[in-house]
Amino acid sequence: MPILNQHMGLYTDHYELTMAQGYYQSGKKDTPAGFDYFFRKYPYDGGYVVFSGLEEFLEMLGNFRFDREDCNFLEQIGFDPEFLSYLLDFRFEADIYAPEEGEVVFPYEPCVRVEGNIIETQLIETLLLNLLNFESLIATKAARIKQVAGNKLLMDFGLRRAQGFGGIQASRAAVTGGFDKTSNVYSAFHYGLESTGTMAHSWVQSFSDELTAFRIFAEKFPDSCILLVDTYDTLKNGVPNAIKVGLEMQKQGNKLHGIRLDSGDLAYLSKQSRQMLDMAGLEYVQIVASNQLDEYVIKSLIEQGAPIDVFGVGTALVTGKGEGALDGVYKLSMINGEPSLKVSENIKKTTLPGKKTLYRFRDENGMFAADGIVLEEENSVDVIYHPFEPEKSLNISRYSREEITKKVMKKGIITASKKTPEMISKFSQSRLAYLPEEHKRFMNPHTYKVGISKRLLDLREKLAGTDK
Amino acid sequence: MPILNQHMGLYTDHYELTMAQGYYQSGKKDTPAGFDYFFRKYPYDGGYVVFSGLEEFLEMLGNFRFDREDCNFLEQIGFDPEFLSYLLDFRFEADIYAPEEGEVVFPYEPCVRVEGNIIETQLIETLLLNLLNFESLIATKAARIKQVAGNKLLMDFGLRRAQGFGGIQASRAAVTGGFDKTSNVYSAFHYGLESTGTMAHSWVQSFSDELTAFRIFAEKFPDSCILLVDTYDTLKNGVPNAIKVGLEMQKQGNKLHGIRLDSGDLAYLSKQSRQMLDMAGLEYVQIVASNQLDEYVIKSLIEQGAPIDVFGVGTALVTGKGEGALDGVYKLSMINGEPSLKVSENIKKTTLPGKKTLYRFRDENGMFAADGIVLEEENSVDVIYHPFEPEKSLNISRYSREEITKKVMKKGIITASKKTPEMISKFSQSRLAYLPEEHKRFMNPHTYKVGISKRLLDLREKLAGTDK
Repeated sequence: MPILNQHMGLYTDHYELTMAQGYYQSGKKDTPAGFDYFFRKYPYDGGYVVFSGLEEFLEMLGNFRFDREDCNFLEQIGFDPEFLSYLLDFRFEADIYAPEEGEVVFPYEPCVRVEGNIIETQLIETLLLNLLNFESLIATKAARIKQVAGNKLLMDFGLRRAQGFGGIQASRAAVTGGFDKTSNVYSAFHYGLESTGTMAHSWVQSFSDELTAFRIFAEKFPDSCILLVDTYDTLKNGVPNAIKVGLEMQKQGNKLHGIRLDSGDLAYLSKQSRQMLDMAGLEYVQIVASNQLDEYVIKSLIEQGAPIDVFGVGTALVTGKGEGALDGVYKLSMINGEPSLKVSENIKKTTLPGKKTLYRFRDENGMFAADGIVLEEENSVDVIYHPFEPEKSLNISRYSREEITKKVMKKGIITASKKTPEMISKFSQSRLAYLPEEHKRFMNPHTYKVGISKRLLDLREKLAGTDK
Repeated sequence: MPILNQHMGLYTDHYELTMAQGYYQSGKKDTPAGFDYFFRKYPYDGGYVVFSGLEEFLEMLGNFRFDREDCNFLEQIGFDPEFLSYLLDFRFEADIYAPEEGEVVFPYEPCVRVEGNIIETQLIETLLLNLLNFESLIATKAARIKQVAGNKLLMDFGLRRAQGFGGIQASRAAVTGGFDKTSNVYSAFHYGLESTGTMAHSWVQSFSDELTAFRIFAEKFPDSCILLVDTYDTLKNGVPNAIKVGLEMQKQGNKLHGIRLDSGDLAYLSKQSRQMLDMAGLEYVQIVASNQLDEYVIKSLIEQGAPIDVFGVGTALVTGKGEGALDGVYKLSMINGEPSLKVSENIKKTTLPGKKTLYRFRDENGMFAADGIVLEEENSVDVIYHPFEPEKSLNISRYSREEITKKVMKKGIITASKKTPEMISKFSQSRLAYLPEEHKRFMNPHTYKVGISKRLLDLREKLAGTDK
């Protein structure tokens, strides 16, 4: 059940409603239309995007309705009563084609295609962009962090620094992109994520001294005790007190689960703490680190040999540090059965017209070699062309091919099978494994080849040449 | 009525619930505690923050409860049944002190003080940080844009690039910070904002040609017609077609409201368009500009004399471009009637203990001269000290003073008067007018003086010296 289940039809930009009324009043309410969702720029100067947010988007479409209260509000702000009585009965009943959630996608690819009447396909633009842009941004960040953290446990600690209610989706996307757990109980409840947590400095401060605070916590949570060791002085007080408590727990047949470092030089402190724990015979006690982590800091900590078992990542993860937004857009490509496009002086901003399908070409080892955007009616394509420098082409006849975009909604009914965020994460990791390393490196990643068919190239040229 | 009204108690970090259970089980459920909310770093390398999000936070506290479904979920993930039956009856009944929403605040100031029992004050940490950090971040961005845009109309166009449901709060904060209108109909409905919109490229593409698309739009919306002129070629087609339609409207006794430029060089295109419109006698037609705007681009456009009447700002506004998150924290400062603090090797990260009040000192013209953080029990302070370089002090006896933090909630009941986002915006603008220019400039703004009293300085020193 979607989180926002009332007034969802209002979750749109004012101009979508203005245009919808205009379409309605000019007799175009049944005019068929097709829109493409695509983005133009890799986030984080990286080389891939993990497509995320699909399931939530499709579920919310079922609630994209206007009740009487919504229509009264819209009438007050100037919308036409006849149009509003149409809206009162409005249901989204279009078809949607998309990649499986967790798929690896690239700029200019028509990831999502929406086909229905012009009103329904127009009205949902904002919702689609809002959810897919953001969840893909965060899932991609999570995947980048997972890429450097390998098998270390990754925990999302971001809700407090998330962008308002955006924290709800951020935690879901953190998991679809590769994180193991989240501190966000609300999202854990709604999406079936695993939630987790330790203690804050306030716990320690609320007792007369740190040792007492640790002892009581260990007594209350003997199976999952992680002690935060930096409230006063990490190496002088925190770790020694944690060791005392760890040994006391051992005597009672319990095991201290871990200590958490939340400030200072994490490389130095983790090495010192590890040594102190090991000397005390507490080799099994894990070290959890948090505080301003991102993919670069974690990479550096691992390269320094910091013996950290668990990383807690907050702000950088849930806000997509370095980017803020994926620049995805939603553009009309079909109207009334005819291909359409938006022209620009900049060829990169001229859109791709027509009903298109996305193929992935894979080499003999299954590795991703290139993607191709072709018109749906084309049977087979052997050569794809660079979309902006068509003198560059690639013969893809030797590669195996798979269709990336599939029908996920038919006349408003979800046809894609439901998957848990954990399943999406596994799928995403399995796909990233086939993406060659040169596209995954952080510094100047090699650009993945995305080409278009000759017929699509010609169609764009023909339509772009017509002044309207 | 808050937007999320179910399962609100779960809108917290797992560790808050873990600690709450620990407090409960160790007999501390009635232990009095006090927490401070403050941030350490100016966002955007700027010189001020517009405090926002308060009213929404206070309203959501009324719904911060746990129903049976929530408790069943918490039991499944390991929480203790006895503690959960306590949670089932949980109501937030603490006191809160805060500045008026829209107030200008500065780093290290204890903006919000929460006083109640340790469980209630702990549990709401995540909700408080999530809402206040984000809305203050965006209201501050909006204020910076307003600062350069002056009396030009400002419209929030950001929902499609907002961070998921964070777009809901972003539009509210855009208005509390100084924007006039929003495209976000959902937030307009919930918060009483003014919504607005024009047309997208898809409207133009959906007709056989641009002129027809413009004519029909003008016919349907004769009172509020803004034509998007860059679908094909702005100066060759878009503006001439808009002029044709504008003159036709004129003949029918209507007025074309505006044209919108959404790509290309906005300075050049707005000048050319203005000239073309004026030559046709359409001096009253406004020019709306959008596309990747932020405070720096708008400043530059205005400095170039671009004749733009309305700015539509999206991504940079609603995601707080350049920052992502305000780094606000929530720290225990009182426990069991005694002052408490968290120590750090870095004096800047050692917290300020005790029950504190925030004063603002104003010069003879009413201009803000400095702020002072003093212990509540102190009657009068004549000198304030730099919090980290106490050899620097400022005599503030010649200034008038006002108390910035006031009680806004008493035993869980809101005592602050309700204000519309528009009222908050006016208040915020009126306060910013008293902040000297040197703190408002974008390049290396002068740091506003925030001092602490001698007694607070001594208290921190005394408590920080005690190893625990």
